[in-house]
Amino acid sequence: MVAIERSRSTARIAKDIETLSGADYTLSSEAIRRYAYTSVYRNTLDYFTRALEELGFDVHEDPVGTLVARNVPQGEPAFGVGSHCDSNRNGGRYDGTMGVVTALEVCRLNKELGLDLPLQLISFLEEEGSGFGQMLLGSRIMAQRVTEEELKEKFLAIDDGRSFWEHAEAAGYEPSRWRESIRILDGLTGWIEMHIEQARVLQDTGNRIGIVRAIAGYVHADVVVHGRGDHAGATPMDLRLDPGTVVAECILELERLAKAAGNGTVGTVGEIEVHPSLINAIPERIRCSLDIRGIDEELFRGVARDVAAFAQEAARKRGMTAEYRERQTLPSTPLDERIVGALTEAAETTGEPFMVMHSGAAHDTMCVADHVPCAMVFVPCKDGVSHSPYEDANPADAALAAEIILTAVRALQA
Amino acid sequence: MVAIERSRSTARIAKDIETLSGADYTLSSEAIRRYAYTSVYRNTLDYFTRALEELGFDVHEDPVGTLVARNVPQGEPAFGVGSHCDSNRNGGRYDGTMGVVTALEVCRLNKELGLDLPLQLISFLEEEGSGFGQMLLGSRIMAQRVTEEELKEKFLAIDDGRSFWEHAEAAGYEPSRWRESIRILDGLTGWIEMHIEQARVLQDTGNRIGIVRAIAGYVHADVVVHGRGDHAGATPMDLRLDPGTVVAECILELERLAKAAGNGTVGTVGEIEVHPSLINAIPERIRCSLDIRGIDEELFRGVARDVAAFAQEAARKRGMTAEYRERQTLPSTPLDERIVGALTEAAETTGEPFMVMHSGAAHDTMCVADHVPCAMVFVPCKDGVSHSPYEDANPADAALAAEIILTAVRALQA
Repeated sequence: MVAIERSRSTARIAKDIETLSGADYTLSSEAIRRYAYTSVYRNTLDYFTRALEELGFDVHEDPVGTLVARNVPQGEPAFGVGSHCDSNRNGGRYDGTMGVVTALEVCRLNKELGLDLPLQLISFLEEEGSGFGQMLLGSRIMAQRVTEEELKEKFLAIDDGRSFWEHAEAAGYEPSRWRESIRILDGLTGWIEMHIEQARVLQDTGNRIGIVRAIAGYVHADVVVHGRGDHAGATPMDLRLDPGTVVAECILELERLAKAAGNGTVGTVGEIEVHPSLINAIPERIRCSLDIRGIDEELFRGVARDVAAFAQEAARKRGMTAEYRERQTLPSTPLDERIVGALTEAAETTGEPFMVMHSGAAHDTMCVADHVPCAMVFVPCKDGVSHSPYEDANPADAALAAEIILTAVRALQA
Repeated sequence: MVAIERSRSTARIAKDIETLSGADYTLSSEAIRRYAYTSVYRNTLDYFTRALEELGFDVHEDPVGTLVARNVPQGEPAFGVGSHCDSNRNGGRYDGTMGVVTALEVCRLNKELGLDLPLQLISFLEEEGSGFGQMLLGSRIMAQRVTEEELKEKFLAIDDGRSFWEHAEAAGYEPSRWRESIRILDGLTGWIEMHIEQARVLQDTGNRIGIVRAIAGYVHADVVVHGRGDHAGATPMDLRLDPGTVVAECILELERLAKAAGNGTVGTVGEIEVHPSLINAIPERIRCSLDIRGIDEELFRGVARDVAAFAQEAARKRGMTAEYRERQTLPSTPLDERIVGALTEAAETTGEPFMVMHSGAAHDTMCVADHVPCAMVFVPCKDGVSHSPYEDANPADAALAAEIILTAVRALQA
């Protein structure tokens, strides 16, 4: 175990977070609003660059603007730490940023304690999709999970409709060399990302640390139930084809299926769109979205299949039809057992309450995990609130995470 | 029974409908769009005025623009027929207009056949609320179911935001004398309104005529379920407060309650509004509208009470809360047994399929019925479609209705 002075780390982390919430680092005074290629994003990269250079790190940015800092020469083995430092458009101080700040604290402690661990800090860009509407964009570019056509023509800025490519060039980057972004992983022996949990499991179970052993995959889909638009007053109950009844049955069946599947499988109807949406009209059709996630592919894909079949059958029984349309799907990402084990041992030695868990939310680590052994560490955020200016988390938990990460990396290097 | 030449009546009704669908009578070329104080509405009143004056009727308009035509002097007893000739903003040819056209045909037949029945035709304005967003506005003014403040300040034109009062004055009327509008009922011994059914009961049961014995009352309300907004992926099934599940239970319970109540009671959820409406967020709250109608006050109000109580209990069981907010309510309107009886006898003598039914939709007749014995006659409209340019109905059914109305009025005068 690496003995750190937690209060000092807490104070440093708190100061970083406080600074990065200032007017130079957000486009909005009501929330943190920071995304790639804006002046406030540039200021944020500069802030980390200065801090890391002070620690003797060599800092550079890859062809699209990913920040990479190493304390050993390029090509030599190093252990990766980091997260992203862009925010949701109306975001808070902690999502992403606290992960980079904690990685910075790991680098500080490494020097301060004379541990000499070879480290590489990465801060990905556009995890939140606030600039171009594309989640995990920086890590997807790195992992070659995009096409050049998308970067040039399809991923357009929310603010002005110009392409990612144009914006990257205007900011002084070389997007034509985007494929080289994968090289930031060269020599990485492992990767640990610290992040706020974005849910209430840690808070509600009284744990200060979550060690993430898997990131959930998901199915995003829509169910559209086609009924028959009729006058709400003049159409008897037995002559109506009301799609709302089928949607209602699907919502309850999704809940039942997700609970029955277990192992952290979840299912949510987040959007319900009614046509024509008039108090005095039986809807003609209703669309509802499905967000189904889990770490067990068989289980969560099974829920998606079952709810699709249920919708069609429930509609048929009532003389209607239902369509199931898949929007997007991503497999679950098991994380590295060895790193999870080292983090677990490190957490145990602190004596603080922690748990091994999975992440229901997506993270940049999903794109790293194909290439490098990975794990994540979560800290609680108040009431699970994130993507909001009301986001709140405790720098003392981040300091504890820094200690655990440092201990684990040291054990893994041994 | 009055023997009429139905094909001639059919042709005349078809011609009236065709004419009133022409460019002089609608603001839109895609739909019938006609509302009070527009040039096309003026043209429509002029069309009926010319046709009625040719039949020897004395035609005038009341202080807000209700068209009134009599073949006996003001004050003498007469039987009322008519409907409204304004349309939904994107309406069809038949809703309202075919009722006035059929009333005109009754007046024509009365003269042609030398029956000498004392008749008064009324065409109400703004039944659809297309001008000022207020349904049944003309007949509510007549029945004194509005306030002067509403007419002067609250009922504002959808097009330009100016008040009903201003528009009425600009059109040459005297809205300050609106209270005199009730005098159009002076001397009326009864009232029959013909209207398209706006539902599919007649079509689906193979009837050409519906004789309406009651108009449903309604409760319009909202249920708002307050859950807790959380991350859809990161919040386990047993830690979520998802208001969608409660709304789903309410939709199915409303269906069960309305069916159990019977006697034509219906319940509809026409609007569902989800906050924040994101595929990857458990909703924070959901509002759904309730439209509950029936002719039996106890039954339909019971359904409203029961679904409100159910929502609160269903929310409580899941650790959430639900509010029930009533928007508006109107009692049901029983129609006059004697007139319904006369219409039923007249329909029987035609040998054509008909049924006695109730109206689930609201009609101007609801405002007349407090003062004068009333009934209504429905004709089928294709697939129940109304308030749409696709509205379709058969002039031959309207001719049959004219025959039945004429026969009934004659019997009632005897």
